[in-house]
Amino acid sequence: MIKDPTPVPRRRRADAQRNVDALLKAAQTVFDTSGVDAPAKEITDLAGVGVGTLYRHFPQRSDLVKAVVESGIDAVAEAAPVLSAAFEPAEALTRWIDRFTELLGTKRGLASALHSGDPAFAGLPDYFLERLAPALSALLDAAAAEGAIRGDIGAEDLLYAVAQLCQPVPGRGPEHGRRIVGVLLDGLRQGGGQARP
Amino acid sequence: MIKDPTPVPRRRRADAQRNVDALLKAAQTVFDTSGVDAPAKEITDLAGVGVGTLYRHFPQRSDLVKAVVESGIDAVAEAAPVLSAAFEPAEALTRWIDRFTELLGTKRGLASALHSGDPAFAGLPDYFLERLAPALSALLDAAAAEGAIRGDIGAEDLLYAVAQLCQPVPGRGPEHGRRIVGVLLDGLRQGGGQARP
Repeated sequence: MIKDPTPVPRRRRADAQRNVDALLKAAQTVFDTSGVDAPAKEITDLAGVGVGTLYRHFPQRSDLVKAVVESGIDAVAEAAPVLSAAFEPAEALTRWIDRFTELLGTKRGLASALHSGDPAFAGLPDYFLERLAPALSALLDAAAAEGAIRGDIGAEDLLYAVAQLCQPVPGRGPEHGRRIVGVLLDGLRQGGGQARP
Repeated sequence: MIKDPTPVPRRRRADAQRNVDALLKAAQTVFDTSGVDAPAKEITDLAGVGVGTLYRHFPQRSDLVKAVVESGIDAVAEAAPVLSAAFEPAEALTRWIDRFTELLGTKRGLASALHSGDPAFAGLPDYFLERLAPALSALLDAAAAEGAIRGDIGAEDLLYAVAQLCQPVPGRGPEHGRRIVGVLLDGLRQGGGQARP
């Protein structure tokens, strides 16, 4: 009887994935508090892994920053079907936009790294759109089908608009962006059930 | 009888102002078509004045750029009471925001100059707020007093929001910004006449 050769690699892959997840979670926390140039040890101590593990998975700091941003985007994308299943379409949309504005708030801390021109980050805008536009599109379609919102604003347009409104404004905190995004969503609902010219 | 000494200076000031106005109008057109580094002669030919007149009023190109931007801001600020007198508050507000988004569209052509870090432009953001916030504030107050819009979004917040929404988005023309600004205004109207928590 030939022994199935998969268990060991599978176990290894599961361990590796657990380490990566722990590193990403720790890095996100450390980046928020100490910035993206925080010492590697601060991250690995929090993740409970060795520094070697960090460098094996993320050779450059930019690899780690990119992975943290991507994992934040993934979490927001994956929230869309969960919210859809739990709430009415209009409420699911509002809650998802809340999650998205939170993500943009987190990204602020990473903004200078992301705008550093490092080629490691070149693919992130595409990743952002590819993951989030279909997620938002499904929420918009469901809400528009119910007549809860106007149906002529596309997911990409809304992503850009919310991202623009969440940019920092002098003398105002992140609450400012959320408030104005709320007005924009009221405007989306305003056209719900109306025939548009 | 002593002759009144003012007519000559007054005439000179009126001539000078006419030249400045002609230069600003010509510069705006030339900047739009040929960029802010267009040859001086292109501007003075269009304005119908000599190059010496240009340099007497605007020694540096940055002086001219700054004056063009300020005069665009002035025109939008001065439109507010005119629109107020001619239209219902909600309609006056909508039309003024239209004028403001047009101004932002024009400013796009000047954007690289304005973001060059030239100290000549350091005062422009303050000028922008000082001129436009009171103008918009009067329009918002009048519309809110009628219950046509919600009353809890301030003029500065709305100026920033519209300016953010009019920033260029990849693959979309200026119509994109106007459309999303329209949704935001629908949202403002949505709260009209309602008590807000």
